[in-house]
Amino acid sequence: MIRIGLLGAGRIGQIHARSVNALDNVEIVAIHDPADEAAAYVQAMTGAARASLLEIVDDPDIDAVIIASPAMQHAEQIMEAANGGKHIFCEKPIDLDMNKVRECVAAVEKAGVKMMVGFNHRFDTNFNAVKRNIENGEVGEVELVQITSRDPSAPSMDYLKSSGGIFVDMMIHDFDMARYVLDDEIVEVYATGSVLTDPAIGKIGDLDTATATLKSAKGRVAVITNSRRSSYGYDQRVEVHGSKGMVRANNLRGTSVTLANSTGYRSDPLLDYFQERYAVSYKAELQTFCRVISGQDEKHPDHIDGLKAIELAEAAWESYRKGRMIKIGE
Amino acid sequence: MIRIGLLGAGRIGQIHARSVNALDNVEIVAIHDPADEAAAYVQAMTGAARASLLEIVDDPDIDAVIIASPAMQHAEQIMEAANGGKHIFCEKPIDLDMNKVRECVAAVEKAGVKMMVGFNHRFDTNFNAVKRNIENGEVGEVELVQITSRDPSAPSMDYLKSSGGIFVDMMIHDFDMARYVLDDEIVEVYATGSVLTDPAIGKIGDLDTATATLKSAKGRVAVITNSRRSSYGYDQRVEVHGSKGMVRANNLRGTSVTLANSTGYRSDPLLDYFQERYAVSYKAELQTFCRVISGQDEKHPDHIDGLKAIELAEAAWESYRKGRMIKIGE
Amino acid sequence: MIRIGLLGAGRIGQIHARSVNALDNVEIVAIHDPADEAAAYVQAMTGAARASLLEIVDDPDIDAVIIASPAMQHAEQIMEAANGGKHIFCEKPIDLDMNKVRECVAAVEKAGVKMMVGFNHRFDTNFNAVKRNIENGEVGEVELVQITSRDPSAPSMDYLKSSGGIFVDMMIHDFDMARYVLDDEIVEVYATGSVLTDPAIGKIGDLDTATATLKSAKGRVAVITNSRRSSYGYDQRVEVHGSKGMVRANNLRGTSVTLANSTGYRSDPLLDYFQERYAVSYKAELQTFCRVISGQDEKHPDHIDGLKAIELAEAAWESYRKGRMIKIGE
Amino acid sequence: MIRIGLLGAGRIGQIHARSVNALDNVEIVAIHDPADEAAAYVQAMTGAARASLLEIVDDPDIDAVIIASPAMQHAEQIMEAANGGKHIFCEKPIDLDMNKVRECVAAVEKAGVKMMVGFNHRFDTNFNAVKRNIENGEVGEVELVQITSRDPSAPSMDYLKSSGGIFVDMMIHDFDMARYVLDDEIVEVYATGSVLTDPAIGKIGDLDTATATLKSAKGRVAVITNSRRSSYGYDQRVEVHGSKGMVRANNLRGTSVTLANSTGYRSDPLLDYFQERYAVSYKAELQTFCRVISGQDEKHPDHIDGLKAIELAEAAWESYRKGRMIKIGE
Repeated sequence: MIRIGLLGAGRIGQIHARSVNALDNVEIVAIHDPADEAAAYVQAMTGAARASLLEIVDDPDIDAVIIASPAMQHAEQIMEAANGGKHIFCEKPIDLDMNKVRECVAAVEKAGVKMMVGFNHRFDTNFNAVKRNIENGEVGEVELVQITSRDPSAPSMDYLKSSGGIFVDMMIHDFDMARYVLDDEIVEVYATGSVLTDPAIGKIGDLDTATATLKSAKGRVAVITNSRRSSYGYDQRVEVHGSKGMVRANNLRGTSVTLANSTGYRSDPLLDYFQERYAVSYKAELQTFCRVISGQDEKHPDHIDGLKAIELAEAAWESYRKGRMIKIGE
Repeated sequence: MIRIGLLGAGRIGQIHARSVNALDNVEIVAIHDPADEAAAYVQAMTGAARASLLEIVDDPDIDAVIIASPAMQHAEQIMEAANGGKHIFCEKPIDLDMNKVRECVAAVEKAGVKMMVGFNHRFDTNFNAVKRNIENGEVGEVELVQITSRDPSAPSMDYLKSSGGIFVDMMIHDFDMARYVLDDEIVEVYATGSVLTDPAIGKIGDLDTATATLKSAKGRVAVITNSRRSSYGYDQRVEVHGSKGMVRANNLRGTSVTLANSTGYRSDPLLDYFQERYAVSYKAELQTFCRVISGQDEKHPDHIDGLKAIELAEAAWESYRKGRMIKIGE
Repeated sequence: MIRIGLLGAGRIGQIHARSVNALDNVEIVAIHDPADEAAAYVQAMTGAARASLLEIVDDPDIDAVIIASPAMQHAEQIMEAANGGKHIFCEKPIDLDMNKVRECVAAVEKAGVKMMVGFNHRFDTNFNAVKRNIENGEVGEVELVQITSRDPSAPSMDYLKSSGGIFVDMMIHDFDMARYVLDDEIVEVYATGSVLTDPAIGKIGDLDTATATLKSAKGRVAVITNSRRSSYGYDQRVEVHGSKGMVRANNLRGTSVTLANSTGYRSDPLLDYFQERYAVSYKAELQTFCRVISGQDEKHPDHIDGLKAIELAEAAWESYRKGRMIKIGE
Repeated sequence: MIRIGLLGAGRIGQIHARSVNALDNVEIVAIHDPADEAAAYVQAMTGAARASLLEIVDDPDIDAVIIASPAMQHAEQIMEAANGGKHIFCEKPIDLDMNKVRECVAAVEKAGVKMMVGFNHRFDTNFNAVKRNIENGEVGEVELVQITSRDPSAPSMDYLKSSGGIFVDMMIHDFDMARYVLDDEIVEVYATGSVLTDPAIGKIGDLDTATATLKSAKGRVAVITNSRRSSYGYDQRVEVHGSKGMVRANNLRGTSVTLANSTGYRSDPLLDYFQERYAVSYKAELQTFCRVISGQDEKHPDHIDGLKAIELAEAAWESYRKGRMIKIGE
């Protein structure tokens, strides 16, 4: 039995608690969240006790923590958990500050615990099938990747203010996906964007429409586009071109129904948002985390993947500010 | 808490037991199946005791039965359950013999219990959306319905021998779907078919390729095609044409991935078979049964729907044998 | 140079005249049509002279006739043209009366002229690709064929009155297509239908919604559905199931454009009607006719194909009237 | 009658000659091409005489020229034609050197002749429908545009050497399309690329995989990806996102046929290359040119559009070399 402490019982913490509930041989035994209501909700769902961070990381019966707290708390919680010898599942991003990210990585490596970062897109059935097709040689040598991510609408301004901005908060998943399917380290980043959906987003220094162009060591190219507005649902596509062919994961909708009349053929909008689109991948992600800490699985997005994604997001912001391509590690 | 006795713990009984497990306020408390292994499997899954049919129908603490036994046992179990005052969920068909079906219907009505027949296709998200589009007036007056059902392969000869043949065993779902979307009673049936996949199927008097043409009281037409062979997965489509438009439920596949190369664009075969294709609808079906017997829902495929579908299947066999259209109730 | 006399200068005669104009080494040299305006239109298009039927069939410099007159004139024109030693391209149907059709066939065979019937669907790029896939063995042994034909709206009542009814006027193309892709002679026909779009159609004894079930000598099954109403454009589909797979020709639309918003994804309605949908196949058809009469091609829908299709249409009407399956040649 | 002199009788000159042949009230009356074989081919097709450039531009009976010669001859021919008072249809690019392009534009404006540049993508039925949807307000305010162009294979090295490189030779169409659908002037360009398909392309300083990110005055963003390799046919897509929705032109294939078997569903590769994909648009383009010089139409890609596209292509090369975003007109 794997015993887990949950740090953060909000929206995403609840998703993970539900995933844990559905798995055998793993349970949430302690919950840390200053918000009474959220904590109580997950307590009712899991039967777990409420505890402080220190109580959790000091408890010898707890094997691992799931960090689902606000981003600015991640680094401290990672450090404490690593020092306490707990395996760590941490939502993205590790932290907004690269120096802190490096400290976390160092702490994890020193402690010898396993750490997995919540890049749940890697666990999506469809993106997984894309990856498998690449590994099986169906597309040959990868040459060009196109990733499209469009949220139905922007989060609250409160959330946005401490989110790190679009490259850190939203495009980070696409940076990780680009690394995953390019199968090569990224060495160059150019990024730009605009404020087109809501001037308030611009006032806090963020963007709502953004694009990045990445180049890998072998010269492979990835192009990412992001928007905080999508009238037709949550748009999540990956398209990989190679020397032998192309593989692409198309979007998902709620039904397979088509309606036809004099205005044409109509099918459903896309699934609403990440809760629906990635419902299956959230479960697969937690299952993999359990397998990884039990030594049954090796492959997972780890602390280094978490660091690399932040590095790209930081480079994207720098590129945007300077109007030029940034070499990673320059 | 609804307490259920499960009659039949084989493949389909296990599907229903799993659905019950996932629901709140309902549990399987007794299992009747002569096969030790199947019974033990569901006992382990549910914690229920093993019991005889009479013990179950006489137990005052049991509210309802789920009948998932072989078709030839349905009628007796329905009669006993009705006499015992239990609500009944029964897999299709009620029985292969119309006289026995009528006796069951009479017993259910006399006992005043609720009965639901396992036409799970009605609970499929996609066919449901088709129905809603009809009800919302999107297609206008229904005129013509096309239903395609193709199994990946034939069941075992043992199963087929006591199945009632393709019109009773397989097309019965499509007869019910035709009634559901035509929204009018069927008055004429013509059916024919062939043995094209396996001569052994012909030797027991059955068909593997079959089609039926139905006409309703208002002159609406439905055309059904069935085959016991489909190389590309489990093909399940419904297409409804009306005065204002057309609505159609397309097939489902495992991923949204497309692979393109010099041979063209390729997407996945369809989902394998009913367990995958109707996974969601099996759960929704049991949920509806619980709501119906709790008085929270009225709409469900009931004993009359069960009878009508058998009537059509019988008419189809008669039509095939006589080479002519059969008027229902002629 | 092939010299052609055009019998009938109406809508379909003009389509064929345009096809001839676009071909090398063939010209329309004489036009026979009692309607001055239609004749003048095609004269202006081709530079051909106006002539009587007898002048055309007696002219030793004319090689062939294209019969595009009303259906009731076909038989006489075929007989005269055959007797005059002219090759014949004749629009479907040869005649509404099977006895007359047989006389035409006898005359053509006695005269030793080539005759091609205007089953232009065989020349459609997509249906052709379906046929090639069957011939190449991609679907294995053909088992079940589904053909859907839906006109955007019914022709005028005047046209319908002398059209032979839906099985002769409309479904005849599908009977020919069924024979083409079943690759086996049809031995059984069941047909039925309704009047659902316009009671006036029923008053002249015709149907607007119709279906036929065909069985071939080898037990292969074809199901055809027809309607005189389709709000979303001209629906023309063929789907062929075999022992190894399925091949299907989907519909065509004017653009490849998709529009997405909060109501879903929308694509164009289908092409309007046969002039647009079969524009390419009309040209290919006439080109084949020229190749056939020049001895460069053998494969074409000939007088026997024309006869077989009428035979099926007659059987369909008989089946509808008698409410039973009709054995061909019974 | 419009009388045209054709300058250049190679592959693209022949396409235009064929388009002219199919139009009423326009003819090619003179052909200038040093290559005897090409000239003779178009002479046979059109009946036109062979002539020198000066004979053509001095001939008072000639109204216009079509410039389909190699790119390095365009500027001289434009200058001569403009000075001779001829209307000009010129293939892209106007010239590889921006200074020469400006001279051409000045000469055309001074002469007061009409000039149209061969951005034939604007005349494609599908891209046209995209544009119409934008104009009709279906997508709201344009925010983000994604353009994908992939050639089946690279042209010959001989051609590539004098082509101006991928941004001038290939992406120029996409720059024009971006301007067309962004509906706003582009003010920033970032471009990069790689050599991944053939090292020989790198040796002459060109790229085979390229991408550009454009930003318009209003902050609208366009992302273009190009490749000289596409195993699955000629990939040509435009996708436009706006405040109210998305509109996209999908690819075209030769048939609408789908084949399904145990390996999945398969449809055709895309149309081979530009001759097939843009067959209709080449005709529409010449038709528009004739309407423009007859004063019947105003809208067309003109000399300024030709200049702007070159400006973007030059900026792309500069961006690639400097590794930074280039401001147009900086």
